Amino acid sequence: MVVLLSGGLDSATCLYWARARGWRLHALAVGYGQRHVRELRSARRLARAAGAELHELRLRLPWLGVSSLVGRGTALPDAPLARIGKQGIPSTYVPGRNTVFLALAVSLADSLGAEGVVIGANAMDSSGYPDCRPDFISAFERTARLGTRKGRETGRLKVYAPLLRDGKGAIVRKAFRLGVPLELTWSCYRGGRRPCGSCDSCKLRAKGFAEAGRKDPAL
Amino acid sequence: MVVLLSGGLDSATCLYWARARGWRLHALAVGYGQRHVRELRSARRLARAAGAELHELRLRLPWLGVSSLVGRGTALPDAPLARIGKQGIPSTYVPGRNTVFLALAVSLADSLGAEGVVIGANAMDSSGYPDCRPDFISAFERTARLGTRKGRETGRLKVYAPLLRDGKGAIVRKAFRLGVPLELTWSCYRGGRRPCGSCDSCKLRAKGFAEAGRKDPAL
Repeated sequence: MVVLLSGGLDSATCLYWARARGWRLHALAVGYGQRHVRELRSARRLARAAGAELHELRLRLPWLGVSSLVGRGTALPDAPLARIGKQGIPSTYVPGRNTVFLALAVSLADSLGAEGVVIGANAMDSSGYPDCRPDFISAFERTARLGTRKGRETGRLKVYAPLLRDGKGAIVRKAFRLGVPLELTWSCYRGGRRPCGSCDSCKLRAKGFAEAGRKDPAL
Repeated sequence: MVVLLSGGLDSATCLYWARARGWRLHALAVGYGQRHVRELRSARRLARAAGAELHELRLRLPWLGVSSLVGRGTALPDAPLARIGKQGIPSTYVPGRNTVFLALAVSLADSLGAEGVVIGANAMDSSGYPDCRPDFISAFERTARLGTRKGRETGRLKVYAPLLRDGKGAIVRKAFRLGVPLELTWSCYRGGRRPCGSCDSCKLRAKGFAEAGRKDPAL
């Protein structure tokens, strides 16, 4: 099973969710010029802790600079879950990121003959990203099945998004239940030495731990 | 409009097809360790000739070595359109290649706010690749619409595959009609100094020119 692993809370929980199912684990971590490239260090540690084989890629996609999560020309919004435009998509949206990530994961899965891929997409407490919504995930699964050797030959290439409909509190509870080493995870969009506490991602994480009534071991 | 440009006959024809429609052209060329990296030189020349802005990427996806088109451990088949396995997928199939390419093109299109993407996929005289079939292309289009800002906000992000149902002869005729500088294109999988004439891709190209009753200006 190929798990997309950013190093954050959600993907780490996915990794341990897949581990609990007994699958042989391949973790795919992708550098794409994110401000918080720091998260990849977390991904490496988490993969090691979970006994997953790590595949680490660096993409240079210059056009992603339009996103405030990548480009240095746009300020990272401090407003919690700031929405922009009709569809409420925030400036931290990275164009087509999950489409690209899932495509890479599917390519790896098809090379390995793996059952499928796991992504920590979350539609509930997410920031309104189009590529974190259920209709996108199921459309991608169909595409992956049709576009691969594995999918054509077996009729199966699953895209699992086990956190898709969870609130952040539920994800934190799940993480504790699964024994995720949360002290190794990294969520902050700024990617400094310590989490900033003020970006969307830090606020969402804090909300999750508060809802679950737990202390964040990474702080 | 973003056109996936490999430097081969089909993608060059797509580039000129898009040009004839008056769109502002962005060409996306991707190095992925293919034997015939030579084709990227053709892509550069074609983009320049067509007045397209070129975006060139290099991906390092070590797992693609399972394909005989990438890996040096597997011989490139000489048998024309050699099929392998139940679904008739040949060893030159690169796992998830068009899924990855389309995802990158969609990411670029969403960054630019472009109308869509164009791919030279061909289901008729192709080598039986799963990611060149009509059901895959339409599934991907739906996925792209759902997973992007452009698609969500406008309800449109097109995936054009204008050669999808053409035979190779029809593609060659179309290329001549559109004024494609065919002498700049490169199809050979071996990627030497001259086309080998014996790989799947050379044979298919020769068949196309024969069917169209034209001489190949690249030979």
